[in-house]
Amino acid sequence: MHVDGVATRTIWPSDDRQAVFVIDQRQLPHAWPVMRLANPADVHRAIAEMWVRGAPLIGVTAAFGVALQCAEDASEAALLRCAAWLNSARPTAVNLAWATRRMINKLLAMPQALRHAKAFDLAQAMAEEDVAINSAIGEHGLALLRKLPAFSSSGRLNLLTHCNAGWLATVDWGTALAPIYKAKATGLDVHVWVDETRPRNQGASLTAWELGKAGIPHTLVADNAGGHLMQHGQVDAVIVGCDRVGAGGDVCNKIGTYLKALAARDNGVPFYVAMPLSTLDTSIDDALAEIPIERRSARELTHMVGLDAAGKLSEVKLVAPDTAADNPAFDVTPARLVSALITEVGVVPAEREALLALQRAAA
Amino acid sequence: MHVDGVATRTIWPSDDRQAVFVIDQRQLPHAWPVMRLANPADVHRAIAEMWVRGAPLIGVTAAFGVALQCAEDASEAALLRCAAWLNSARPTAVNLAWATRRMINKLLAMPQALRHAKAFDLAQAMAEEDVAINSAIGEHGLALLRKLPAFSSSGRLNLLTHCNAGWLATVDWGTALAPIYKAKATGLDVHVWVDETRPRNQGASLTAWELGKAGIPHTLVADNAGGHLMQHGQVDAVIVGCDRVGAGGDVCNKIGTYLKALAARDNGVPFYVAMPLSTLDTSIDDALAEIPIERRSARELTHMVGLDAAGKLSEVKLVAPDTAADNPAFDVTPARLVSALITEVGVVPAEREALLALQRAAA
Repeated sequence: MHVDGVATRTIWPSDDRQAVFVIDQRQLPHAWPVMRLANPADVHRAIAEMWVRGAPLIGVTAAFGVALQCAEDASEAALLRCAAWLNSARPTAVNLAWATRRMINKLLAMPQALRHAKAFDLAQAMAEEDVAINSAIGEHGLALLRKLPAFSSSGRLNLLTHCNAGWLATVDWGTALAPIYKAKATGLDVHVWVDETRPRNQGASLTAWELGKAGIPHTLVADNAGGHLMQHGQVDAVIVGCDRVGAGGDVCNKIGTYLKALAARDNGVPFYVAMPLSTLDTSIDDALAEIPIERRSARELTHMVGLDAAGKLSEVKLVAPDTAADNPAFDVTPARLVSALITEVGVVPAEREALLALQRAAA
Repeated sequence: MHVDGVATRTIWPSDDRQAVFVIDQRQLPHAWPVMRLANPADVHRAIAEMWVRGAPLIGVTAAFGVALQCAEDASEAALLRCAAWLNSARPTAVNLAWATRRMINKLLAMPQALRHAKAFDLAQAMAEEDVAINSAIGEHGLALLRKLPAFSSSGRLNLLTHCNAGWLATVDWGTALAPIYKAKATGLDVHVWVDETRPRNQGASLTAWELGKAGIPHTLVADNAGGHLMQHGQVDAVIVGCDRVGAGGDVCNKIGTYLKALAARDNGVPFYVAMPLSTLDTSIDDALAEIPIERRSARELTHMVGLDAAGKLSEVKLVAPDTAADNPAFDVTPARLVSALITEVGVVPAEREALLALQRAAA
């Protein structure tokens, strides 16, 4: 995507292949700090502290983490240890373990002496693959959106999205937002309701910023507002990303997704999930019971960072000194509430047989 | 209720009957500023700017506004003009118009010369009545809670509440929280999940503070988290207040209430609404279409006030300069999702016949 006229990705290697660059997305939309990650420890920190976030981008960043490990020690033991450690940085999204496993499998298939020279190419190939996957999701999603009644009646489509599944969550294009960028490119009229997405405000700080840079009409709303908007016919479809999808089509995504899916169902609004196949985890049978739900710091709820009157990033405390908080970061939307999954190979129902067939075809 | 050992209400007249005192609740939980309202304009401002909020407290504050009008001009024309103006301060809660109408009816029934002398007594009587109503809601609600399975099994009851329907939303006791205070007083073990309640954070700043002062175990959660908690059996019942209830039992309450009601229904969790009869508006047939939904400033979403590192109240901006926001303040929960209404005369189903019978009995 373009940021102020400059073609930009969320992650890119240094020319000397000694490091990888990412954006510290915690400072968006107020600043655009480019951070240099020079070793696996830097990568672990960037993932755990959410400088980078979004299941696809986490995966590619971890792949570069494995590549950087090769510069230090490319032995099988060191690579396996590094991958396990990187995987522990965020527990819920399956793309992280998927990406490190792919890197390890390819590296271990070659002599140790070659690994350092090849590792950056492998990671960069995964980045390119992510771009292609998301572009394909965008095309398939666009075809789905074109069939919605609003496009044929009013001509304007009102979509609602939760969290950030835009290009900032991937290497480029995004997952849930890719069809919207494709729609814009073909001249279609789309307006996006952007859920704030408490407690980390990825909607307010990332999705709204992305859409603004792309010139796509959008309106920020509280997470509480989506049901009301749907009751009043102001949402033609909901489209979200995902962090892990179980074999039966249950969708684990940012906390609050389930509530929007319930409202969509109650109001006859289609609920679409953009899903790269790397997010499918057919080892998960009972998503509610089996997918580990990351619990993040209470401070994400009790404090808030923003620009103060002097234009500096400043943190304020929102609660009384004795207020405790619980902060589950993801929830599971049952497959029965999902209208369709948009993958890079096409649109499929959130059903076990369809997903197993997809996986067989991809294997 | 007690604040640090001192019996406290949210509103009380000055000894000289020249003014009424309220708390500027916008500064809670960081400060406890007592504000003197000396005329109807002060009262209008306190309601419109949400120094006071909560349907019952808005009503009583407006009643004192009418009383203060009598000191200036107690003519019928002046009183009617004053009431209409106060009613315009917040459009959604029906208690506001209910309270001013009661004041006007009583004042107009007496000679103009007597109105000034009597008006404060009338307003104060409405305050006392509010306390008695909420105490009765507390008793009826407590009886309902005692029947929940969790009390007989684990012994601890986990309730979830949205926004603030505690004593800060009333003169004393609260509506949704009254049963919880009664439960605490009888030694029962209750824990409360407190929805943050974006965008004004009444849960984080008011409900959590109230429960903390009362020594009731509670945990702040994002508005997004309630569905996840219910899916995992961590909520035994949801209990909320309301701003207006239509003839068919549809409940208009703080934005986001509808989403919690959907999750409660999807998980077999009872969804209770504490409703003073003053909140019932049988003139409303189709609540979704007819109840005016207040749209508040976008700034409530784009900026946030809290304590900065120096301990001073400070505002930070959360979004990019070009981010627009929409801020509907209430939504409507259809009666079909409401397990029961808790009123001061008992627990009733959210059904037209039951509500019309209640109103006939109260008339």
